[in-house]
Amino acid sequence: MISTDILIIGAGPTGLFTVFEAGLLKLKCHLIDALPQPGGQCSEIYPKKPIYDIPAFPEVLAGDLVNNLMKQIEPFQPGFTLGERAQTIDKQEDGTFIVTTNKGTKHHAPVVAIAGGLGSFEPRKPPISNIKDFEDRGVSYIIRDPEVYRDKKVIIAGGGDSALDWSIFLADVASEVTLVHRRSEFRGALDSVEKVSELSKLGKIKLVTNAEVVGINGSEKLESVVIQHKDKAAQDTLLEVDDFIPLFGLSPKLGPIADWGLEIEKNAIKVDNTLDYQTNIPGIYAIGDVNTYPGKLKLILCGFHEATLMCQSAFQRINPDKRYVMKYTTVGGVHGFDGSVKTAKKEVVQKIG
Amino acid sequence: MISTDILIIGAGPTGLFTVFEAGLLKLKCHLIDALPQPGGQCSEIYPKKPIYDIPAFPEVLAGDLVNNLMKQIEPFQPGFTLGERAQTIDKQEDGTFIVTTNKGTKHHAPVVAIAGGLGSFEPRKPPISNIKDFEDRGVSYIIRDPEVYRDKKVIIAGGGDSALDWSIFLADVASEVTLVHRRSEFRGALDSVEKVSELSKLGKIKLVTNAEVVGINGSEKLESVVIQHKDKAAQDTLLEVDDFIPLFGLSPKLGPIADWGLEIEKNAIKVDNTLDYQTNIPGIYAIGDVNTYPGKLKLILCGFHEATLMCQSAFQRINPDKRYVMKYTTVGGVHGFDGSVKTAKKEVVQKIG
Ligand SMILES: Cc1cc2nc3c(=O)[nH]c(=O)nc-3n(C[C@H](O)[C@H](O)[C@H](O)COP(=O)(O)OP(=O)(O)OC[C@H]3O[C@@H](n4cnc5c(N)ncnc54)[C@H](O)[C@@H]3O)c2cc1C
Ligand SMILES: Cc1cc2nc3c(=O)[nH]c(=O)nc-3n(C[C@H](O)[C@H](O)[C@H](O)COP(=O)(O)OP(=O)(O)OC[C@H]3O[C@@H](n4cnc5c(N)ncnc54)[C@H](O)[C@@H]3O)c2cc1C
Repeated sequence: MISTDILIIGAGPTGLFTVFEAGLLKLKCHLIDALPQPGGQCSEIYPKKPIYDIPAFPEVLAGDLVNNLMKQIEPFQPGFTLGERAQTIDKQEDGTFIVTTNKGTKHHAPVVAIAGGLGSFEPRKPPISNIKDFEDRGVSYIIRDPEVYRDKKVIIAGGGDSALDWSIFLADVASEVTLVHRRSEFRGALDSVEKVSELSKLGKIKLVTNAEVVGINGSEKLESVVIQHKDKAAQDTLLEVDDFIPLFGLSPKLGPIADWGLEIEKNAIKVDNTLDYQTNIPGIYAIGDVNTYPGKLKLILCGFHEATLMCQSAFQRINPDKRYVMKYTTVGGVHGFDGSVKTAKKEVVQKIG
Repeated sequence: MISTDILIIGAGPTGLFTVFEAGLLKLKCHLIDALPQPGGQCSEIYPKKPIYDIPAFPEVLAGDLVNNLMKQIEPFQPGFTLGERAQTIDKQEDGTFIVTTNKGTKHHAPVVAIAGGLGSFEPRKPPISNIKDFEDRGVSYIIRDPEVYRDKKVIIAGGGDSALDWSIFLADVASEVTLVHRRSEFRGALDSVEKVSELSKLGKIKLVTNAEVVGINGSEKLESVVIQHKDKAAQDTLLEVDDFIPLFGLSPKLGPIADWGLEIEKNAIKVDNTLDYQTNIPGIYAIGDVNTYPGKLKLILCGFHEATLMCQSAFQRINPDKRYVMKYTTVGGVHGFDGSVKTAKKEVVQKIG
């Protein structure tokens, strides 16, 4: 069982910044995210795109924003349970919570902060009836560790940035990369489209366009896939492969959180914005894109503010007898749980002459 | 008369970021500040100190934060009335407002955003009975343009960073710099203290410690000051000078705003934090350090959020018939009033093979 002060569900920008604000209050955090990496939408959907409305950044790439946040929270040593979805929550008699993931990992904390954004990112799956049987046995929808595909025969399906970028990357790793897409037009960064085009000419990526994977076969694990061509005259192709990776994008689903007894409105969690972004269940807060209140804006900078106010309230819940007196970071410095200390240079008082 | 969409009182970080959020909504802004430069507390009190809790900045100097904000809002061409204090507000029959400064400059706008922080920064003045008569006639409390002092005989009073730093700076500009301080210990950055000590040894700064300016004389303008020494045995000194600059720090005063009919609580303006940070007078908002509501934190990042929500409400007030559909900056880009356009690189849709 993982124990912490604030259990954060969702490691998007809001969840990450919560670690910092909690750390200033000497509260430890642990984050759960369904994705294999932190950063939420910023990392998953648009890491290489600029954001223009983060205060004091005339321009920042979404991926850099996440890197900066990771660096900022480093002194507070957050724990991470990545690649797992928070599935159930159980309130204990003492008012604390146990949150269990789809893989059975249990987390215990007096405060739960849901920073789940638009929801847990779940892959869009191709409509192949027996695909479930091959999940983790040759079929995967997210690439966690590309080394898994070394010297393997891989087929990737999709026509967007993920499909393009991973085909390029795996061309150097796998023994054979086939990229299948149901159209002949790809949608992605110019670089990626051109690179795939080049690798295809060099024979390093086998390109099959206007086609779809419609069947998968194997006994213990995946052995081959069936490719159906749009051209009615063409016969289906049977291709022997070790791995099939459909990259049709991830779509966020509020998912299991919707069944936790929280008030839901417009597919988001209703919170008390007059004070601390607490939900109808005391001790459970909702911050960032996942919450709703009158005037709510789903913007990153709003998540930062909500996280900050929420941490104050969490502090009082965890330390009912302590009075917290806020100190500016400039004045009080940042005292990491790792022993690191950042402080402004002190003024001197010195006699002259 | 200066006309604008949102008149912002206070050019601290909150006021500055308001220009950006308003700009995204195609609303123009004008800022009034009592200080000669933008940046509020960050510029005036601690420009060279690091802040650690601005989201995605593991560390940023307060002065750099302000520079970044100035750069971010540049495309939206804000107007500035600096060095003047907003003094009176008059509601017009059509619901718009006219704000007049202590120097008589008039500003007209349908929305007023008070981002006045802890108040308008007013200099602490030495208790010399006739000092008022010499203001702007040889006596000044803030240095706006150091060139004014070229080849002049200047006396600076004070023992903190401003007094130290301006003495150093003016040592190269003025024909004579005297620094008088009522103690012999100075309080400031180590660099500055050492530099003054060095310049004093070189005779480039005349240092008079344990002493105070107690009298000023002149007919049309300042001609001399009287320096009283702590050492009772010592006689008062009469020093001929062109300029006397007491730098005893600035202290913020809510000042005239307190008389505008707004609900005041804890020396701050009460706002409706459930929606848009509007005050009890419709059309007047209060954002950043100057406002108060349950759970309020006087932090820079909170001012950014408040400014953002406030601008949405201002948009509706100014355009009652338009419906605003928020677009992410990443998607919609930033379209400056100066014709500049920032946008993310577009994805391409391209045929391969
Ligand atoms: C293309 C695009 C451009 C954008 N541009 C801008 C912009 O310019 N400015 C701006 O401010 N915003 C922009 N946004 C929105 C911005 O990305 C979001 O506001 C921000 O990511 C919200 O952060 P968050 O931390 O609240 O949630 P998210 O970033 O959505 O992160 C939530 C995380 O929670 C995880 N999660 C959810 N439920 C569970 C569960 N049950 N178990 C485990 N994990 C779970 C998800 O997997 C996800 O990683 C843009 C969004 C997109 C898609
Ligand atoms: C030493 C120090 C360290 C700090 N460290 C941190 C930190 O680490 N993190 C953090 O988040 N915050 C910190 N703060 C607080 C932070 O600086 C403030 O929260 C922030 O400056 C508030 O911004 P603002 O724009 O609301 O107001 P301000 O910065 O106070 O600006 C308000 C401006 O309005 C002007 N004004 C007011 N009334 C009038 C009027 N009638 N007419 C004309 N002009 C007027 C004032 O002159 C001023 O320039 C610190 C403050 C200090 C002093």
